[in-house]
Amino acid sequence: MMAVLKQRQDNTALLVLASVGLALVTILSVWRLKQCKYRLIHETGGAMFYGLLVGLAVRWLPFDWGQHVVNIGETVYTCGGLNSTPHILTVNITPHFHYYRHVGKVNQSCPPVSAPLETFDPKVLFNLFLPTIIFHGAYTLNQKRFIENFGSVLTFAFLGTIISCVTIGACVYGFTRLMVLLGQAADGDFFLTDCLLFGAIISATDPVSVIGLLSELRMDLDLHTLLFGESVLNDAVAIVLTHAITTYSQMEAGHSFDTPAFFLSVGYFLGVLAGSLLLGFIFTVITALLTKFTRLCENPLLETVVFFLLSWSSFLSAEACGLSGIVAVLFCGMSQARYTVHNLSSEGRTRTKQLFEAFNFLGEIFIFSSMGYILSTFPHHAFKALFISGAFLSIFISRACNIYPLSFLLNLGRTTKIPCTFQHFMMFAGLRGAVAFSLAARDTSTEVRRTILTTTLLVVGFTIWVLGTAADPMLRCLDIRVGVDADENPEDLSLEVATGRPDTTGGLWHHLDYKYLKPLLTHCGPPLSDSLPRCCGVFARLLGSPHVQEVEEQLCETEPDDSALDSVKTENQLLPTVGDSGSEHQEDLLEGDLGLGTAAALAREA
Amino acid sequence: MMAVLKQRQDNTALLVLASVGLALVTILSVWRLKQCKYRLIHETGGAMFYGLLVGLAVRWLPFDWGQHVVNIGETVYTCGGLNSTPHILTVNITPHFHYYRHVGKVNQSCPPVSAPLETFDPKVLFNLFLPTIIFHGAYTLNQKRFIENFGSVLTFAFLGTIISCVTIGACVYGFTRLMVLLGQAADGDFFLTDCLLFGAIISATDPVSVIGLLSELRMDLDLHTLLFGESVLNDAVAIVLTHAITTYSQMEAGHSFDTPAFFLSVGYFLGVLAGSLLLGFIFTVITALLTKFTRLCENPLLETVVFFLLSWSSFLSAEACGLSGIVAVLFCGMSQARYTVHNLSSEGRTRTKQLFEAFNFLGEIFIFSSMGYILSTFPHHAFKALFISGAFLSIFISRACNIYPLSFLLNLGRTTKIPCTFQHFMMFAGLRGAVAFSLAARDTSTEVRRTILTTTLLVVGFTIWVLGTAADPMLRCLDIRVGVDADENPEDLSLEVATGRPDTTGGLWHHLDYKYLKPLLTHCGPPLSDSLPRCCGVFARLLGSPHVQEVEEQLCETEPDDSALDSVKTENQLLPTVGDSGSEHQEDLLEGDLGLGTAAALAREA
Repeated sequence: MMAVLKQRQDNTALLVLASVGLALVTILSVWRLKQCKYRLIHETGGAMFYGLLVGLAVRWLPFDWGQHVVNIGETVYTCGGLNSTPHILTVNITPHFHYYRHVGKVNQSCPPVSAPLETFDPKVLFNLFLPTIIFHGAYTLNQKRFIENFGSVLTFAFLGTIISCVTIGACVYGFTRLMVLLGQAADGDFFLTDCLLFGAIISATDPVSVIGLLSELRMDLDLHTLLFGESVLNDAVAIVLTHAITTYSQMEAGHSFDTPAFFLSVGYFLGVLAGSLLLGFIFTVITALLTKFTRLCENPLLETVVFFLLSWSSFLSAEACGLSGIVAVLFCGMSQARYTVHNLSSEGRTRTKQLFEAFNFLGEIFIFSSMGYILSTFPHHAFKALFISGAFLSIFISRACNIYPLSFLLNLGRTTKIPCTFQHFMMFAGLRGAVAFSLAARDTSTEVRRTILTTTLLVVGFTIWVLGTAADPMLRCLDIRVGVDADENPEDLSLEVATGRPDTTGGLWHHLDYKYLKPLLTHCGPPLSDSLPRCCGVFARLLGSPHVQEVEEQLCETEPDDSALDSVKTENQLLPTVGDSGSEHQEDLLEGDLGLGTAAALAREA
Repeated sequence: MMAVLKQRQDNTALLVLASVGLALVTILSVWRLKQCKYRLIHETGGAMFYGLLVGLAVRWLPFDWGQHVVNIGETVYTCGGLNSTPHILTVNITPHFHYYRHVGKVNQSCPPVSAPLETFDPKVLFNLFLPTIIFHGAYTLNQKRFIENFGSVLTFAFLGTIISCVTIGACVYGFTRLMVLLGQAADGDFFLTDCLLFGAIISATDPVSVIGLLSELRMDLDLHTLLFGESVLNDAVAIVLTHAITTYSQMEAGHSFDTPAFFLSVGYFLGVLAGSLLLGFIFTVITALLTKFTRLCENPLLETVVFFLLSWSSFLSAEACGLSGIVAVLFCGMSQARYTVHNLSSEGRTRTKQLFEAFNFLGEIFIFSSMGYILSTFPHHAFKALFISGAFLSIFISRACNIYPLSFLLNLGRTTKIPCTFQHFMMFAGLRGAVAFSLAARDTSTEVRRTILTTTLLVVGFTIWVLGTAADPMLRCLDIRVGVDADENPEDLSLEVATGRPDTTGGLWHHLDYKYLKPLLTHCGPPLSDSLPRCCGVFARLLGSPHVQEVEEQLCETEPDDSALDSVKTENQLLPTVGDSGSEHQEDLLEGDLGLGTAAALAREA
């Protein structure tokens, strides 16, 4: 009887149950702490902490975790001629050949971690939850602010990450030389490319933790946009950079500089970026046209599901093509919020937002608890004290080399300067997280890569627990206003639109957006037949909305921002309002600029 | 360069993308067909059809599906003394022992199915989507109708499934004897227990497909309740019965009747059922108390996530304990709708409903497309023509032996009879689906089990495609009214409550529910201090709601039904109203009875 019961015990169910239980404990305890005004601890930190605890329990408790530990009497086979440990083993068991996949090393003293790891399979987590988190961030982004600060965000994300990568690489390389001097490592253990690789992996700030921090503190919108935009875009940069460096180090001969390989890497970098952007936009076009030309909006459930699946597909297809899924889903989210949202029914709009919100929340918790779990159960940690010290030192140095000089340069061109307090906080808020971890965990075959994984996990833990917790006091200390109501100035949003003279900004992008994309993808904007040359008349009539009304224009322009604000508003209601006094001295920071200030300056003159 | 790109291609992403694409194609094409008034095809049938197509494509297209096919030159190892094919292979690769897990047989002519199968892993699908589908069905169930028809539902689910199992077993056993006579099978191939096992697997109607059918047709509420209630509960019966038969056949010696083994199986059956019910209720109590005594409802997002995770946990923990997850989550859903819903904020109520609705919709599509896929790619199908004919014949015979005699018996006791048209439709609407498949797929080690799996898949396909499609014409033919608005008689619901004399129904359950559970778990009902004996005063003050108001009572009682009706209403808006003419001749079917009619009769007298 017991045997049957035992047999019925579903191991998968048990492991899923454990993660669900972990998530529940995290949610409830963090929520409880927040109620008691301990607002410093965020869900991500809590989740990672509990994951760590569970991992320690799995590792050290004397319990058979359903694992096959070699029992006395269990047959151990020896395969002729097998010296290495291949990932896939092809065995000739007459009359067939069979495939066997490597599970793990047998170790009687320490419970093997592979089976629970399979449940916390990072691939599943990343394919399922990472896109929804990024999408939610992009979908609820204040678009006007983002476009205003686009030039600065781009500078921080691209130049900043490259500076950061190089600085970290150089700094850590110095420490590895010290290790060689002190006899802690051999001369050929760490190459410069390895250190640069570590730099690429660790230099990107993490959107998940930064979004968590930002939604918690509701700080100034410009600062919010800068931090969020940087964190999202620099992930993409880091991913592409990592692969470019890997490509380069695979191609170069004898670890000396190789010019063709370098340019090939740069070309790869640009190609991946452009491809991902395009792919994300293609999925938006599909969704927008589908919702515009069919009566899908009559069925909010179908609409929501189709919207969700298509947005998710942008990530998946980018990953499947070898592009950057994060960039694709980011751009997809932003363009969905700009175009497709207008075609959805009002119930569909609420539903999509709430669905992504729930996924986002669950995803953060699952991803971070899995990180904590892996930190404590990964069996091949390689702790190198000097490497770790070098890494910790370098992340501060590199962040300083990134933020202060770039802010100085940007302030030369910006109409609204980035104040010093913002710079200090940006320097401080360099939280690392899921993406760095996923990049580090992708390959742990060599000692160097294992050292990188261990160090990455420690850096992630440190930034989330220490920096994340200290962010709130830091903001007070820097006297940056928090508890900002995102809908403070809804008028100036609609005002700009109501004047109906977007052409004065002169931007090519705005022209394309307003004259072609809006009328093509939504029911708003000027009729396509006006924008397109006469020869495209048939095309315009076919794709243009039959019921375009100029009156709709204002409505359409303001709605996406409303939807973005709504979600912030919801959060506002939930949190105790802290630091509202700060909003009294409203800084004059409500106008940024696109690129280097020309656009906003022109708009102002007009 | 290409090598790197190739390396980056994420196989997991590609496979997930394929399933997402499949889901999108299914949703859009079925929706398109519905728009063209082809309402006969349901999403489940469409999903299974497309899954089948994809499976056929994978099987027959000459394409390398990222599989390791032994290349010339790839090393094939021979392990000394290995004759069988163990699931886990322990290999001595000096200096360590390593575990290898079996992936699949190497076969150059036919693409191996194991890797794509891992993505469509039934375990993941069932752990993730099955509970949400069942929960959604139970959560949006019209509770009053269910309680009224509870006796009949129970009879059909328990007695009916057992009758069905025995009939199918006997009928199929007859056919296997015929196979032996015709020389198509050896004498020891099929035992009676094998046939009974098949009967247990196939006799349960499937809640997923039945819910699909019901929500599509919006038929009479009593018929809806009978069909849905039967399909949900008989799944549980089938699961427990299957395991009881497996237990019995493992324990019995020499395939002769074994009395202790039989009673042990019966005891096991009852134990599992009671345990699952209890477990489901425990999770409701946790959720209800959590939402009652904390201020979780101030944060609708948290509330929704906690509600979702706790409800899901009821399924997972039942499965992990070796109980029936379906029964647990069913009962959890029903009791959540009865108690916890009152403690949720109104936004939380909408959100939970919509979240489960979306999961339900996605889950149906993924589960059925995976069934179609497995039907066409499972490499070890065993087609036995006579066994299959026997199965097809027996499912009709067994359904007739189940519905007609039981309806006759029930009509003796019911105040509202089950009319003949209903009986014909119930006889007809015996759709099989996901649960039968999951039971059959659990073990495919022997030829008998493979025959059972193949036959089950064919029966499921037949009932869904043929019977499911024919249901709409059948309803018209039988002149059963469809297109019923669920909120037709909201007055009689509130009326019963407003009179405030639920005690007149005299049921023990109602007494327990109204006097103890309602005040304990929600803010409604009479104060606990009135219901409990004086000695429990402290307990009553501690657990009773501080702001119980008798006035709230009516509000609270009507709300859950409202919420259930709302979702039906939403569906109503989406579907073209067909057969509304049928609602003109309103049959007097609005009062059923609990058990055998005493309750309703008493209520009527009062």
